[in-house]
Amino acid sequence: MEHHIKTWAEMAPRLVAVAAGREHADLVIQGGRLVNVQTREILDGWQVAIVEGRFAYVGTDASHCIGPETEVVDAAGRYLIPGLCDGHMHIESGMLTPAEFAAAVIPHGTTTMFTDPHEIANVLGLDGVRMMHDEALMQPVNIYTQMPSCAPSAPGLETTGYEISAEDVAEAMAWPGIIGLGEMMNFPGVINGDPQMLAEMAATMNAGKTVGGHYASPDKGIPFSAYVAGGPADDHEGTAEEDAIARVRLGMKSMMRLGSAWYDVETQITAVTEKGLDPRNFILCTDDCMAGTLVNDGHMNRVVRHAIDCGCDPLIALQMATINTATHFGLERELGSIAPGRRADVILTSDLKTLPIEVVYARGVKVAEAGKIAVDCPHYDWPENARKTVNMGKFLSDTDFAIAAPNNAPRQTVKVIGVVENQAPTKALRANLPVIDGVVEGEDGTCQISLVERHRATGNVVNAFVSGFNYTGKMAMASTVAHDSHHMIVVGTDRDCMAQAANRLGEIGGGITVWKDGEELAQVALPIAGLMSDSPAAEVAANADKMVAAMAACGCTLNNAYMQHSLLALVVIPELRISDLGLVDVTTFEMTSLFENEEE
Amino acid sequence: MEHHIKTWAEMAPRLVAVAAGREHADLVIQGGRLVNVQTREILDGWQVAIVEGRFAYVGTDASHCIGPETEVVDAAGRYLIPGLCDGHMHIESGMLTPAEFAAAVIPHGTTTMFTDPHEIANVLGLDGVRMMHDEALMQPVNIYTQMPSCAPSAPGLETTGYEISAEDVAEAMAWPGIIGLGEMMNFPGVINGDPQMLAEMAATMNAGKTVGGHYASPDKGIPFSAYVAGGPADDHEGTAEEDAIARVRLGMKSMMRLGSAWYDVETQITAVTEKGLDPRNFILCTDDCMAGTLVNDGHMNRVVRHAIDCGCDPLIALQMATINTATHFGLERELGSIAPGRRADVILTSDLKTLPIEVVYARGVKVAEAGKIAVDCPHYDWPENARKTVNMGKFLSDTDFAIAAPNNAPRQTVKVIGVVENQAPTKALRANLPVIDGVVEGEDGTCQISLVERHRATGNVVNAFVSGFNYTGKMAMASTVAHDSHHMIVVGTDRDCMAQAANRLGEIGGGITVWKDGEELAQVALPIAGLMSDSPAAEVAANADKMVAAMAACGCTLNNAYMQHSLLALVVIPELRISDLGLVDVTTFEMTSLFENEEE
Repeated sequence: MEHHIKTWAEMAPRLVAVAAGREHADLVIQGGRLVNVQTREILDGWQVAIVEGRFAYVGTDASHCIGPETEVVDAAGRYLIPGLCDGHMHIESGMLTPAEFAAAVIPHGTTTMFTDPHEIANVLGLDGVRMMHDEALMQPVNIYTQMPSCAPSAPGLETTGYEISAEDVAEAMAWPGIIGLGEMMNFPGVINGDPQMLAEMAATMNAGKTVGGHYASPDKGIPFSAYVAGGPADDHEGTAEEDAIARVRLGMKSMMRLGSAWYDVETQITAVTEKGLDPRNFILCTDDCMAGTLVNDGHMNRVVRHAIDCGCDPLIALQMATINTATHFGLERELGSIAPGRRADVILTSDLKTLPIEVVYARGVKVAEAGKIAVDCPHYDWPENARKTVNMGKFLSDTDFAIAAPNNAPRQTVKVIGVVENQAPTKALRANLPVIDGVVEGEDGTCQISLVERHRATGNVVNAFVSGFNYTGKMAMASTVAHDSHHMIVVGTDRDCMAQAANRLGEIGGGITVWKDGEELAQVALPIAGLMSDSPAAEVAANADKMVAAMAACGCTLNNAYMQHSLLALVVIPELRISDLGLVDVTTFEMTSLFENEEE
Repeated sequence: MEHHIKTWAEMAPRLVAVAAGREHADLVIQGGRLVNVQTREILDGWQVAIVEGRFAYVGTDASHCIGPETEVVDAAGRYLIPGLCDGHMHIESGMLTPAEFAAAVIPHGTTTMFTDPHEIANVLGLDGVRMMHDEALMQPVNIYTQMPSCAPSAPGLETTGYEISAEDVAEAMAWPGIIGLGEMMNFPGVINGDPQMLAEMAATMNAGKTVGGHYASPDKGIPFSAYVAGGPADDHEGTAEEDAIARVRLGMKSMMRLGSAWYDVETQITAVTEKGLDPRNFILCTDDCMAGTLVNDGHMNRVVRHAIDCGCDPLIALQMATINTATHFGLERELGSIAPGRRADVILTSDLKTLPIEVVYARGVKVAEAGKIAVDCPHYDWPENARKTVNMGKFLSDTDFAIAAPNNAPRQTVKVIGVVENQAPTKALRANLPVIDGVVEGEDGTCQISLVERHRATGNVVNAFVSGFNYTGKMAMASTVAHDSHHMIVVGTDRDCMAQAANRLGEIGGGITVWKDGEELAQVALPIAGLMSDSPAAEVAANADKMVAAMAACGCTLNNAYMQHSLLALVVIPELRISDLGLVDVTTFEMTSLFENEEE
């Protein structure tokens, strides 16, 4: 059940009739100050008339559009700003379904999202993308889907549940909610002319849609130029002013993100505020927001507010979250400004600097007021195969996590994934560990990490070591959020606890669980693809808080320990990671042995 | 034979390979200063590498793209600016075919045009539009066609050769060179919800293309709002700053024109230069340029130069003729900036204020240098039916132009079309004229005007009176350029001369001819649809100059007398006009009688 809005073309007769005063609007908002992102002006006293979800009239006096059935709202001197657009993001990062994500962000004024469901693509392939896409289209706000481009993220180094092919991309381009290709993360592939990556981008460009970029390298020389020549039209991986400048100079859009753990606006927005570049090619986005951020801090309103705090003119900051975004995706005539014909997505706010989101209208309907959602965000009927994705093939026991010593030496030197505080890259460390009864045991802050295959029921468990969490006592933490292949990562000091944690996730269909001394301390159930909950954000955020507290109770002292945990299988970020195929040296992009003396 | 350029998607492997240095560019330009219209910056020393007509590399050093076959050009410190775009124009106004128009404007740096062939649509219908479209696609520059929307311009008040229907519009949207709908001139129709006009716009919007606007009224209140709600995305009819501001505030693009007889840049650009509105929604265009303007003054270079002279920052003025235009038509990834993947349309100029067009590259090929065309602009093989459009049905004689008095009175009071110096609107005047042998004769500057039907060979001649040209002696001037229906307008003091002039145009297939004392003084042959010559612009301009001189030799003292002549059948501009159906009162949009005492 798509949340339908008629096209401008379909509605033109009615829009004209209302604007001319021959028919009546559904809603008129008077007494406000209109923020015009087309001209970058504030127009005092301008009024809007809305019919069937679109602006029919925008001007100094909408009284001719008012009939007996028209709802007339007095904005009481507040500003009318366009609904906010998130230029690039992953709904799964909130551990919420599109419906619950929408319900969480609508009160923050987000009325349009461009979302790349590449997490579910790794678990459920094209079918999973379609489910996300379909739930997205059921929402009362605009959620456009970017077709995932890179699943698996590292072919040959991991096995995902499903893979995305160029044919999948071509097929998806015909779906109603697809706006383009999701971030082309395989930038080495593009630079080297990888035929599949070029075919995916060609299918997107041939469909007249937008290719999302992801160039995660500081080298802005020849490799960057080659990447841009391949077709990506935007990039959100910049972290410094010079990154932003390099992107816009080559005709890309610089997407600047403030997510739960991304802080790339302050460092880049000086390209506009200090260097004076034309702001039209700068776009704000979140990329990844945890449920807790949505509950406690906000969404795109947080990003715009932050941009303003960084010295950006409020109207320019608003353009970066409205019309710039819409224009980039070919939607300037559809949304992103308060102008005739566009979707009537509009926010009432009493201050342009602190940006309180007081009332939110989407498609002419009041969807939130005073931070409370005022509309239903319908749930997709997720099929059984989306709710039963933890397929380990067997019940695990402690022996599945035992690492046999390769020889009779009393201690063994092993490679250890060294988690570094506040950094995504790990260190490839070494440790000399004791052997007890032929099994290598962790010690002194080095504990076990296991990758449990969960897509194809192979029963495969890859065991290795990790340091940095500083867990103590007998514990285990398991998660089926394990970027990007989303198998199951279990970290623990005790093999019984590890088996218990893994089996619990098998039982509940995925999520996160923390165990100590044979008891479950905390659980975040993520039954949909093992990635998402269809519970409200507040509930998921509360559970996530308990999970973080439980990790601390197990001795963990790391910031963002959960995120660190979930990234340990992301075999595209150096130096050492784990996958279902074994340990991966992400400096050479090759498999590597666990034991120091077993080099291939 | 379309002048083919591969798509970015098709070329991406090669573009990447060249940018990466694995393959070699066709052309590298070094030693210049790149004008970046994306960021609004000048980048000293930036270089470009071009392959197969597109930019592969844009950056500080293209030497890795150079191979033994690569042509290397030293820009010698000159600026590289993107090829100029004309946002809205009519090729027929130059009295030149698309090929000859292109040959005339390429040396001025115009590499992209958005052209609405609505003149030929009135003469040859959809077939004529297709011919223009096809010749446009043969050119070495980018000529996109806007499908004409309003032929006839005034249904019921005139009969055109062909009419354009909503079905025609829908059909044309699938043609390769169609970029959108041509100016929707029937603004009263839109405002009143005319189903055909709304259907034409809907067909365009459903095809994802751009609806051109034309709102020629000073009323920026409710009617204007209703028009905008109907879907037109741009408008070039503004003439004052407040017109431009009204358009951009409602989310339209304000197209500001400087044509042969349009001077609407200076009066509107203050919306940017003084009022400080975001310039992104302002676009420069010409609308109508005579061949003489192209030969003597320039084309889009003249417009940009003029905008700069009006106080506009040169980089902003260039944006208004490059990236703003491209973005408006959904072509930002295709042209309008010097950036990877875009068509390699680039100009070398040594000064950004005076803008000398020194070298022009289009699709990576040098197409002009030092004001001279350096490339072939191929001619379409215009079929016989396009070259034989003057079908009067008979040889005319002086009696066809005789106006019989309705009664026996020695003088008759008639309505007279009063041409006003330097104004498009006419005055509805009265004159009391003598009757000789039962025929009403002009006197004292009031002479005859006749509309000769020439599309359907009806033999119909409508006779009336006109004043303002101040012709003396025995003369006639005839033209098959007679907006918008393009029948034949003959103005003369002598019925024999009028017949001679009309018959001459029948003989040569249309154009303009001036006769005095039974001799032809000047002729501009326009054999294609009676509107265009396929001779070079210089030749047409020279003939047009002779035509103007001949009009002066007949006593004409009016400025732009030829244009005044050609607009006398434009039955949408007040007050009094002539059509094939009779005299038209364009204040009431009704037919009216010639004789004062014969009011219906």
